[in-house]
Amino acid sequence: MKKVTMKQLATALNLSSATVSKALRDSYDISEATKQRVLKLAEKLNYSPNAHASSLRGKQSKTIAVVIPEVADSFFAQAINGVESIAQAAGYHVLIYLTHEKLQKERDILKELQNGRVDGVLLSVSTESVHSRHIDELQAAGMPVVLFDRIIEQTGIGQVYTNDQESCCQLTQHLISLQCKKITFLAISDAPFVSKRQKGFRKAVESQGVSGNVLYCSNDENQNRLLIHDLLTGTDKPDGIIASVEKLTTGVYLACQEMNIAIPQALKFGVFSNLNSAAILAPPLTTITQPAFEIGEAAASILLKFLKEIPFDTDERTIMIPARLDIRASTQV
Amino acid sequence: MKKVTMKQLATALNLSSATVSKALRDSYDISEATKQRVLKLAEKLNYSPNAHASSLRGKQSKTIAVVIPEVADSFFAQAINGVESIAQAAGYHVLIYLTHEKLQKERDILKELQNGRVDGVLLSVSTESVHSRHIDELQAAGMPVVLFDRIIEQTGIGQVYTNDQESCCQLTQHLISLQCKKITFLAISDAPFVSKRQKGFRKAVESQGVSGNVLYCSNDENQNRLLIHDLLTGTDKPDGIIASVEKLTTGVYLACQEMNIAIPQALKFGVFSNLNSAAILAPPLTTITQPAFEIGEAAASILLKFLKEIPFDTDERTIMIPARLDIRASTQV
Repeated sequence: MKKVTMKQLATALNLSSATVSKALRDSYDISEATKQRVLKLAEKLNYSPNAHASSLRGKQSKTIAVVIPEVADSFFAQAINGVESIAQAAGYHVLIYLTHEKLQKERDILKELQNGRVDGVLLSVSTESVHSRHIDELQAAGMPVVLFDRIIEQTGIGQVYTNDQESCCQLTQHLISLQCKKITFLAISDAPFVSKRQKGFRKAVESQGVSGNVLYCSNDENQNRLLIHDLLTGTDKPDGIIASVEKLTTGVYLACQEMNIAIPQALKFGVFSNLNSAAILAPPLTTITQPAFEIGEAAASILLKFLKEIPFDTDERTIMIPARLDIRASTQV
Repeated sequence: MKKVTMKQLATALNLSSATVSKALRDSYDISEATKQRVLKLAEKLNYSPNAHASSLRGKQSKTIAVVIPEVADSFFAQAINGVESIAQAAGYHVLIYLTHEKLQKERDILKELQNGRVDGVLLSVSTESVHSRHIDELQAAGMPVVLFDRIIEQTGIGQVYTNDQESCCQLTQHLISLQCKKITFLAISDAPFVSKRQKGFRKAVESQGVSGNVLYCSNDENQNRLLIHDLLTGTDKPDGIIASVEKLTTGVYLACQEMNIAIPQALKFGVFSNLNSAAILAPPLTTITQPAFEIGEAAASILLKFLKEIPFDTDERTIMIPARLDIRASTQV
């Protein structure tokens, strides 16, 4: 079990080990502000004074774990490539673990990772993960964790994410500008990253006085297709749909095909997606395209700086990389 | 470093350990046929008499590695799910390693896996892997390997694959039946799985007296787009294209969009692909759909039977699961 060392605390805070040591002993040599910074990080990473010894016992595996919900999603496929490009250059191996969107599986994997098989963890949480207890436990066991894309605030030694709320607000405003009067947001859970997207959606519809409702889909493709079918046959059917995750795309397109609902004439549709094939769909699909590769790169860089004890500023630990709205035929007049 | 034990040989051959022991000592108790079976497998797995001791030294990790070229491919995404469904039920963890279609990376990973981090390996080789030396070395170090989908014959304790040659022949015949006179096969390398697909293609064009040529694409998307663009602007441009791998799909569709070449009117197009979105492309895409989930399941089952020393027949080690030709609008008249 790898523990956080005093040297790592010092590196992360860009201070000398002596300063950290003094701060932890509440020495009068050290300013109150510095003491607070040290104590805050020490608490966050569950630093304990005997950690250094146990760190010497364990040896580095030169391996990092990437824990993600699934690989059948273009975002994660591209993010992994970003992680590997950084890790490989630094001589680190990458292992991929899948949670299949299950909190229990995520818990099991993080528990397993306490055994020191890897030196650090990059995590994008499942749709079921609404709290960070299991992540905090892993960190308490001395394993540094960087969250990416699907983050939970207040946990991890670093976080890299995108502007979920703003970009969803922007897509919603785009639909409203095309005269959509009834827009449905397809949620997949109340995980923080989905909630932020939903919040952006709500903000846009409320500020423009447009009707906006939320439909909760699941991780079951067939069930989703039925839900979307019902939505589109209802008396209150929408003229715009925004999907919170890529995997809902096929369900919407197929339901529209089956019911002869023309996209974009009768229904405007946009989605959070990095689908390579967005431009060759019938019709080409408007997407909020996330900087997947860059997010993977940035998350791996934070973790490796920490592991290699390269000094870096606290404000380099939380990075927001904005997404891009790619307007295509699915949301044109 | 985990070695093959006598018990594992016995289990794999459905014999008692005593019989295997006697066969290896060339005992007169044992029939010549049995001796040959034992010696053949012992040689294949590089069994050495002192292996049992080292096996006792190492402890099981209850983890299997899945080594694949990439995750941005629907086949592998689905195959991983098949592997995990079996592994999870048996209490095994799954680690995913990516080779990015590079033989050198594949070699490095297999070398790394000799250290006993995992109990067994499932491997689908890169497009650059035309021989099995690095795989044989891993097996010689006592690590059982099952190859799946992209196999190299004569290696591994088991192989699960699909009917590459026959299914590609079938797709080619389908294009010929639609009056295609000049068909181009988009290859990606001379890896065995691509060669088999190419062989099926050649067989069909030659038997029907139709013109068939082969264009080698690369793993670089932009380069491929230029190649396909050149192909479609040439004087000798094809009226049918068959792509050997899914990732060539977007290049063909975009080139046709740019040049106003109508699919299927001016060009019929079919591809080996498990793309979930095949049915919602413009036009819907004809695919050879591989039983990805089932291939993953079968490969994991063989490996776990071996690891858990469950007796199974030799003919259960090599499994062919046929692919399905899904005809959609991209190859209609």
